[in-house]
Amino acid sequence: MPNVIALDCMGGDLSPQAQVEGAVLAVREMGIPIHLVGDAPAIEAELRRLGATNLGIPVCPAEEVIGVDEQPSTAVRRKKRASLVVAHQLVKDGEAAACVSSGNTGALLAAGLFIIGRLNGVERPALAPMLPTLDGTGFLLLDAGATAEGKAEYMLQYGLMGSLYRQLVHGIAAPRVGLINVGNEDSKGNELYRQAFALLKAAPLNFIGNVEGRDLLLGATDVLVCDGFTGNIVLKCIEGAGSFFSRVLREELMASSRGMLAGFIASPTLDRLKQKLDYSEYGGAPLLGLKGVSFKAHGSANARAIYLALNIAHSYIASDMASHLSKLFNPESNPENAPEAEGSIGKLVL
Amino acid sequence: MPNVIALDCMGGDLSPQAQVEGAVLAVREMGIPIHLVGDAPAIEAELRRLGATNLGIPVCPAEEVIGVDEQPSTAVRRKKRASLVVAHQLVKDGEAAACVSSGNTGALLAAGLFIIGRLNGVERPALAPMLPTLDGTGFLLLDAGATAEGKAEYMLQYGLMGSLYRQLVHGIAAPRVGLINVGNEDSKGNELYRQAFALLKAAPLNFIGNVEGRDLLLGATDVLVCDGFTGNIVLKCIEGAGSFFSRVLREELMASSRGMLAGFIASPTLDRLKQKLDYSEYGGAPLLGLKGVSFKAHGSANARAIYLALNIAHSYIASDMASHLSKLFNPESNPENAPEAEGSIGKLVL
Repeated sequence: MPNVIALDCMGGDLSPQAQVEGAVLAVREMGIPIHLVGDAPAIEAELRRLGATNLGIPVCPAEEVIGVDEQPSTAVRRKKRASLVVAHQLVKDGEAAACVSSGNTGALLAAGLFIIGRLNGVERPALAPMLPTLDGTGFLLLDAGATAEGKAEYMLQYGLMGSLYRQLVHGIAAPRVGLINVGNEDSKGNELYRQAFALLKAAPLNFIGNVEGRDLLLGATDVLVCDGFTGNIVLKCIEGAGSFFSRVLREELMASSRGMLAGFIASPTLDRLKQKLDYSEYGGAPLLGLKGVSFKAHGSANARAIYLALNIAHSYIASDMASHLSKLFNPESNPENAPEAEGSIGKLVL
Repeated sequence: MPNVIALDCMGGDLSPQAQVEGAVLAVREMGIPIHLVGDAPAIEAELRRLGATNLGIPVCPAEEVIGVDEQPSTAVRRKKRASLVVAHQLVKDGEAAACVSSGNTGALLAAGLFIIGRLNGVERPALAPMLPTLDGTGFLLLDAGATAEGKAEYMLQYGLMGSLYRQLVHGIAAPRVGLINVGNEDSKGNELYRQAFALLKAAPLNFIGNVEGRDLLLGATDVLVCDGFTGNIVLKCIEGAGSFFSRVLREELMASSRGMLAGFIASPTLDRLKQKLDYSEYGGAPLLGLKGVSFKAHGSANARAIYLALNIAHSYIASDMASHLSKLFNPESNPENAPEAEGSIGKLVL
């Protein structure tokens, strides 16, 4: 399989400009092999605008786009020529080792499951964004909402996949794996979480036990295991609190001339603060547990965020995460020949 | 039942100073009848220090204290002379209409259930803190962790109790009741949440449907219904993100002389910001669904926070919330004569 990344250039707020600019940067700076997928005339116009036609970045035409409000699985099934679908098809067909998209998250989950398909042995793939921490190293949260119904067995696999990812892609020797819970003591939580605790404790992991919401951003863990429902809520509560805080700070500063002066003087500080809290700085969120990999970049990703997402996808490929993941769940078999994982894929959250 | 509030003066970070000072303020400013419970010599010394001995505030001696790290139900059973236990006993005995405590949250839940007892017809009491919103009106979250195991029937009752509380205690005519979920669409979430949605939709409530974590602090709802596990995590994630943001802001400002200057100029703004984010400004969190009511004040509550918690407990009593709540769950019977609610009380979260 080539080391190519298929980049869906459509479906984001700043598409295709941000995507093409991020890709050009990734090719120029890092030499990452990329296929641009989407509205070919628009992409080519961007390449010309950036003086990048000489880089020879291939463009795969895809005439349709999946909107943010479309019903995900229906859209993926019907719009065969949507950029998001074509990008996932390139991974399925072995033309690309990974894809990156800023499009509809539900459609990305559906395309990952229906087009690329689950890795044999994986019960449910997990969406795994990075969130910020005080020391800047961040933590990986999974599942952030690929599966709404929680099961302890899925959560054990989230722990295993997350630990491997942080080890291989981020170079952490023995990633700390924590379980979100309502207290730090071992017996905390509901039945689902007590079962997940027991499975994680018995697994070959650096399991540090239960972690509380208030300690997450302080850097309590490297990997946070949640069921998809809870994980999605944790993610959105933290996002929401961050934007609330920024907004209140801005409003309070604008409310007096003294505040405005302070805001002016502090503007470099406030910019650094924003960057520290901006989790697009950590690149895209992988959908882990597929036969290939799909990365979700933020819907409002700018060129820098796309560049970072392409970098993390490139590290994923370079670390040979795919074959390590396959060996983790299929220690005996050759993953290339393994039968396709079949069965219900559960209800998508997003 | 008299309109007295029993105030547990021990068990908080600033006990008994903050408690006694807050109580003196509440007596002086609002004429609220209060019984001070705890270490009598220490409380009396504080009253003298504040020149408040002439107010005639009764002191109920309680020689023991429950520590923050003690196992809640064991501590409540064994320490009959703990201030938290004595305060709840005063409610049970009809000497007080409400109690307020900054002590161990788990012990407060246990004392509420074991000493005061559940109101007939209520399946599970709910801990109901207020959280801040952009416009300053806040929202009530319940259950924040009184019960770890989620059931749709409990969640329906949380919605009913929360709506009544905001109506009577906060004067909101038709409180908006929302259900925390992973998306706004009706069909979102797991089985538990789809069931709770159906029950809430059919109830006599201003039910606005599913609400996402990122919209909470923007003021999306007046009452947020969660199962106790999820509610506790929502609360702690928002708290954690708030303190993370403040800390990063402070660190970034201190990192340069330019930032320090800005911080100095902006200090009144930053103080207002802190106040806006400080949910102790909304007073204590009631444990709703008991035969009396118990309010949890923050462990680190200062005199002002205690004063606000006493005010909210006073409004609760004055609004006759207790008898409205009783009528809600026992439309036919006279609550005074109703048999005691018995049976398993479930596993405490905190």
